[in-house]
Amino acid sequence: MVAEAAGVSRVAVSRAFNPEASLDAEKRARILEIARRMNYAPDRAARALKMRRSHLVGVIVPDVCSPWESQEIDALTTALQERGLGTLLFKTRADLTLADATLRNLRSFNLDSVIAFAESVGPDRLRPYLDRAVPIYVDYLGAGTPATALADVDRLEIDLVPGMTQAVALLAGHGARRVAYLSGRPGSQAERSRRATLEALLSARGLPPPRVAAGDFTYATARQATLDLFRLDGGADAIFAANDESAFGAMDALRHGLGLAVPGDVHVVGFDDIAQSGWDSYALTTVKIDLAARVQALVRLILRRTGQPEAPPLREALPTSLVVRNTVGGGAP
Amino acid sequence: MVAEAAGVSRVAVSRAFNPEASLDAEKRARILEIARRMNYAPDRAARALKMRRSHLVGVIVPDVCSPWESQEIDALTTALQERGLGTLLFKTRADLTLADATLRNLRSFNLDSVIAFAESVGPDRLRPYLDRAVPIYVDYLGAGTPATALADVDRLEIDLVPGMTQAVALLAGHGARRVAYLSGRPGSQAERSRRATLEALLSARGLPPPRVAAGDFTYATARQATLDLFRLDGGADAIFAANDESAFGAMDALRHGLGLAVPGDVHVVGFDDIAQSGWDSYALTTVKIDLAARVQALVRLILRRTGQPEAPPLREALPTSLVVRNTVGGGAP
Repeated sequence: MVAEAAGVSRVAVSRAFNPEASLDAEKRARILEIARRMNYAPDRAARALKMRRSHLVGVIVPDVCSPWESQEIDALTTALQERGLGTLLFKTRADLTLADATLRNLRSFNLDSVIAFAESVGPDRLRPYLDRAVPIYVDYLGAGTPATALADVDRLEIDLVPGMTQAVALLAGHGARRVAYLSGRPGSQAERSRRATLEALLSARGLPPPRVAAGDFTYATARQATLDLFRLDGGADAIFAANDESAFGAMDALRHGLGLAVPGDVHVVGFDDIAQSGWDSYALTTVKIDLAARVQALVRLILRRTGQPEAPPLREALPTSLVVRNTVGGGAP
Repeated sequence: MVAEAAGVSRVAVSRAFNPEASLDAEKRARILEIARRMNYAPDRAARALKMRRSHLVGVIVPDVCSPWESQEIDALTTALQERGLGTLLFKTRADLTLADATLRNLRSFNLDSVIAFAESVGPDRLRPYLDRAVPIYVDYLGAGTPATALADVDRLEIDLVPGMTQAVALLAGHGARRVAYLSGRPGSQAERSRRATLEALLSARGLPPPRVAAGDFTYATARQATLDLFRLDGGADAIFAANDESAFGAMDALRHGLGLAVPGDVHVVGFDDIAQSGWDSYALTTVKIDLAARVQALVRLILRRTGQPEAPPLREALPTSLVVRNTVGGGAP
């Protein structure tokens, strides 16, 4: 009866009720809808529809993506496409939080998985907008950082300590004592954990706490903050920037705005190791988050969870390391 | 079932549920009444499902996105999200063409719209994978470029001539005669049209044709090609790079690899005006494609088409312009 009403074969109807069987998505939806209206196995049909995978992975990103996020999205999209999955971006507001309208929008896509940051949307607020997906949280773990409340969700933990310890040791080895911290966007957990870790590492070496130049992860703000730091606030021996783009702004302020040499007069260290950090004009010494390893870890988390919806919370860990280029050193530039 | 009860064909039942289809009024009323009594509206359900919008816009992008593409995707995603639409990326292979598997994947998402380049997938190949969407093609129009075969599809036409004419005039005004072209990725229409336009503009000024340094839109290849151009191939007065990232590679090769001044010894012009081109270390004079205007034009095309599925081919045009910074000039750097 359903087959006749839908103008399809009985085999197709059978396949429509089996979420594992391959069938043109629209055809399946049409059959299930007709079956529902004819009151045919309504529960099974509803369940099948609800459990049908969308093959969409949501990624919650800031209102404006930095090169780091762009490079991550690019690599993640490629990795997911190879597995037949699409990457769908959801943008936060300027304060990094997610609007209710965006969450409702997110819900309408029936995501298979979603990657989030705690500052944008906590697990308790996100879950009601997910029918099937278990969210994955990216978390930055550092020295002196309070434990986050993400123990019961899938998560990727980036350990800031190894790379930042090496960076501080290198700066100290080159005699830097007055280390300034060029901060990231307020409210970001990446920002908070980097700052707290730097403070802990400097303190452990008996160095004074960092004076803070207020940045927001962008070039322009970092450039101005660096000019202010040196013109109004006594300068520094070294600048530890919250991300690479900020480090570029600091370097350009030092070299082009203040006539200072990097690293001859001031050392600069960044964070991320984006592609541009290897370019000759910057050749930035920076704390690396391995982009390929990060994307692989995220894909593993997604595939494990979609394969085992009822598994206990999953966790991947990723260390940082220091990439030494030409912005920390004793000699002339 | 309804057809049997009403004593009509299944086609007649289908027509009865489609207000646009012609059917004897009395017959239609009888069928609808029987269907009502049987609590059965299959065609409406089917039509509603088929016409249900996915709210997904596909964008076909290269296997690895340059900063230009990343910045465009970022702005486009923000603009579409405000309208409840999601941006779904589809990656080409390394040769910029689209794999069949990717097209099948694309089809499964039932896109509302899709933005493509002719080199990746032509309209005839793409259409069978689109149920409802009308593709939008981005086309680069230049001097000396053969007309593309995109007259009958929705398209955004970027006019290279105004910006490149100003760039060549500026170079000629500063006395450049030997202009080299640092090329983009082979097979790209952006590459072909930029090269042909430069050749036409130089020829119109009586300047020799450009010698070509073989790039691929990336920093690393551009850097090496520039070293080779100057070490093995006689150098040039000016380099016109196919995109900004290539211009940065050329500048770093000139300054850091060859000890030459930009613009003191060699002028450099880029193409795109990405965010990094305004950074002090490069301060690149470049042909600008207005990113905000481009995204607005794409969004207009998408909304017009989804609002009027049967409209004739739509077209948006966008000029280029020259942004003058510090890489073309007579003085010392």
